[in-house]
Amino acid sequence: MTQNPTKAFVFDVYGTLFDVYSVADKCNQYFPEKGEQISKTWREKQLEYTNLRQIMGNYKNFYSITKDALHFAVRKYGEEINEKAENELLKEYLYLTPYSEVKEVLNQLKNKKLAVFSNGSHDMLDPLIEKSELSGEFDQIISADEVKHFKPTIESYHYVSQILEVKPEEVLFISSNGWDISGAKNYGFQTAWINRQNLPTEELNLEPNIIYQDLSDILEWK
Amino acid sequence: MTQNPTKAFVFDVYGTLFDVYSVADKCNQYFPEKGEQISKTWREKQLEYTNLRQIMGNYKNFYSITKDALHFAVRKYGEEINEKAENELLKEYLYLTPYSEVKEVLNQLKNKKLAVFSNGSHDMLDPLIEKSELSGEFDQIISADEVKHFKPTIESYHYVSQILEVKPEEVLFISSNGWDISGAKNYGFQTAWINRQNLPTEELNLEPNIIYQDLSDILEWK
Repeated sequence: MTQNPTKAFVFDVYGTLFDVYSVADKCNQYFPEKGEQISKTWREKQLEYTNLRQIMGNYKNFYSITKDALHFAVRKYGEEINEKAENELLKEYLYLTPYSEVKEVLNQLKNKKLAVFSNGSHDMLDPLIEKSELSGEFDQIISADEVKHFKPTIESYHYVSQILEVKPEEVLFISSNGWDISGAKNYGFQTAWINRQNLPTEELNLEPNIIYQDLSDILEWK
Repeated sequence: MTQNPTKAFVFDVYGTLFDVYSVADKCNQYFPEKGEQISKTWREKQLEYTNLRQIMGNYKNFYSITKDALHFAVRKYGEEINEKAENELLKEYLYLTPYSEVKEVLNQLKNKKLAVFSNGSHDMLDPLIEKSELSGEFDQIISADEVKHFKPTIESYHYVSQILEVKPEEVLFISSNGWDISGAKNYGFQTAWINRQNLPTEELNLEPNIIYQDLSDILEWK
């Protein structure tokens, strides 16, 4: 079988290019005893609300959903949050640190189209990338907010193909999130799952084309 | 504002009519050290896979999804499962115990249409209800599998309205799951959230019409 050459590398953002650990860290500052639980529930609810709004046909951008999820998490553990704390916690998403290998990997892929594709809205993505050392590395910053369909809908990934003017099978889609890899594969992208936490593959009958430990290994991709 | 009289009481099943605690208990028998974690991940993945398959347009019935979720959960904690253990764990869903107040509540609502509506497929729902003391209490056992759209899609709740031949606002939909209440409200049902665990309401801008501690209180509903 002849494989189509990969023309574009498309990266998920949170947990893939950027480490979200500092968000949990910040939660611990504001809620010393409950920071870990609150940040875990925050992340779970962020994903759940994104899915539920997609299913109910009740779109709202990811920044607002992230704020809603924070409110739920705080209330679940019997805490309250004032506006200052809320702003500080949300702002943490704009100051995440890229994983150590990212810059070098992107440099070595300069002959390809490079893009990010995230459920995050531009008010989250643009400042994050601009403030990081990755500014200028990407040809496109694509948000699901542009098409108002979140990943893992077929519509969302299809939008990326259109923007980049490539066929689905000419894209290598790279994510650390199992559900995102499943969705990308379901649409027709080639997929590389970055399995930093040594998790099992999802049981969704949509295996990734390849599994790597971190992003460095994608340089091997032919 | 004159409210339409409620003609039908529609109940969610897992966690609403039936206590799912025994599933966790059974997990502890098979995985003594890890039963709690495995059963928690199992339930989370069951919900997540249901949502993801709905979003990706990749329908599969709830029994199969429940099996897939179990496989993921077991593998996540470094365990293996043989066919016998798998069958025994899945069978637990057919032998759940109704909450103590259920039978009496249903008896007192005999002058209304009574139905259950679950994402569970009939191969799960029918034996469960038949084996329980609730057999014969319901006019309809409705599964999302009949319409191949899971809750919380609008299509799924609309199907219930059609089957019961009632307007959305003539239904009181009763569930202990926040996401389910949000979906039912989003469609147009009246909703009663059974908040057994004293959780905060979901941050989805779809508040329940009323919140009760357990099912007994729905007898107050006018």
